[in-house]
Amino acid sequence: MSVYEAIARRRDVRNEFTGDVVDEEVLLRLLRAAHAAPSVGHTRPWDFVVVQDPATLARFASHVAGCREDFARSLPRDRAETFDPIVIDGIEQSGTGIVVTYDPARVAAPMCSDGTPSNETGRLSVALAIENLWLAATAEGVGVGWVSFYHNDFLSRLLSIPDDVEPVAWLCVGPVTGLRSVPDLEHFGWRAGRPLDAAVHREAYRDRDTAVSGEQ
Amino acid sequence: MSVYEAIARRRDVRNEFTGDVVDEEVLLRLLRAAHAAPSVGHTRPWDFVVVQDPATLARFASHVAGCREDFARSLPRDRAETFDPIVIDGIEQSGTGIVVTYDPARVAAPMCSDGTPSNETGRLSVALAIENLWLAATAEGVGVGWVSFYHNDFLSRLLSIPDDVEPVAWLCVGPVTGLRSVPDLEHFGWRAGRPLDAAVHREAYRDRDTAVSGEQ
Repeated sequence: MSVYEAIARRRDVRNEFTGDVVDEEVLLRLLRAAHAAPSVGHTRPWDFVVVQDPATLARFASHVAGCREDFARSLPRDRAETFDPIVIDGIEQSGTGIVVTYDPARVAAPMCSDGTPSNETGRLSVALAIENLWLAATAEGVGVGWVSFYHNDFLSRLLSIPDDVEPVAWLCVGPVTGLRSVPDLEHFGWRAGRPLDAAVHREAYRDRDTAVSGEQ
Repeated sequence: MSVYEAIARRRDVRNEFTGDVVDEEVLLRLLRAAHAAPSVGHTRPWDFVVVQDPATLARFASHVAGCREDFARSLPRDRAETFDPIVIDGIEQSGTGIVVTYDPARVAAPMCSDGTPSNETGRLSVALAIENLWLAATAEGVGVGWVSFYHNDFLSRLLSIPDDVEPVAWLCVGPVTGLRSVPDLEHFGWRAGRPLDAAVHREAYRDRDTAVSGEQ
């Protein structure tokens, strides 16, 4: 699959997992793709914890379900109704979790940047690896869903992640029946797509109100 | 170009820019690819400032050269000698800077996560967009180099970026003569590649010493 096709077809998957477990050879290709990502200072400050034990998946799914309820309760009524049918994870259905972590100790060298220096570019490098994995998965017919609803402390305890290593993402990874043509959150009316024109500025940052005015 | 080929061929480019300016149609395809990245809550919290004014490029290049000197002076002698021949940017040679920013105000909804909640996943979303752009550029024969040596305050003033919007990256983007087969930082002996085996764990995070022991 071409780069552009993978970029266009990629979706954040929650509903379309077949229930089969991803093939081990495919899984290794995905991890190799992630590991080929750029990283600040060529540090590769990421780790990947592959979780396939059904008991661990079930424990994490139960935790996330609790977080989802907390979030739903925090919403105003109309937003809660919009949110209600939206599935937020496929932890058990996907059969595989890839937990991607960031180890700040690997990015030790100081750099010249205020506020968010090498440490921040280190964490951002981990996201570059995640996107590589995501696009490779799309080319393989494998779906990926990034779970955001969890407490870091819970996940660290669940997988024995050391205190000084940060869990960055739980990715649900598994074969899919297909990929939706429209993102779920657009489909269910949670948020319209922001057009590209609103995000592109020339030579300097335009007034933000102007930049946003084209939003749908 | 296939996804896997782009992932394998992609490099952080500093030396190989031809001096030509990227074609406008190609530039738009790259921005569209970035904008198709996943983002937390489908918020697309990024903006892209395209900088092609030679005077602005020169001002930023001069600032980065100063930061490079500060960094070099901070290194022990042997590391300083290793660092000396390494070019860290192609700001003027590439002809185009794409400054990618993060607007935390777009990621307003609270989420269930300790410590680094929605705000952090917002910033990480911006990195996903950067990797999309980088891989699309690779497929187009266009090089990308992420400049890390600068002060955020300087860049914000240079491009009139509002105080509450964060510059995340300056990307040098331009046609290249070719891409190196080995990352510059490996080629010049700055850092060896960390093997994948050291980064992959099964079911739980292994002892970190063990995970690192395979490092080259």
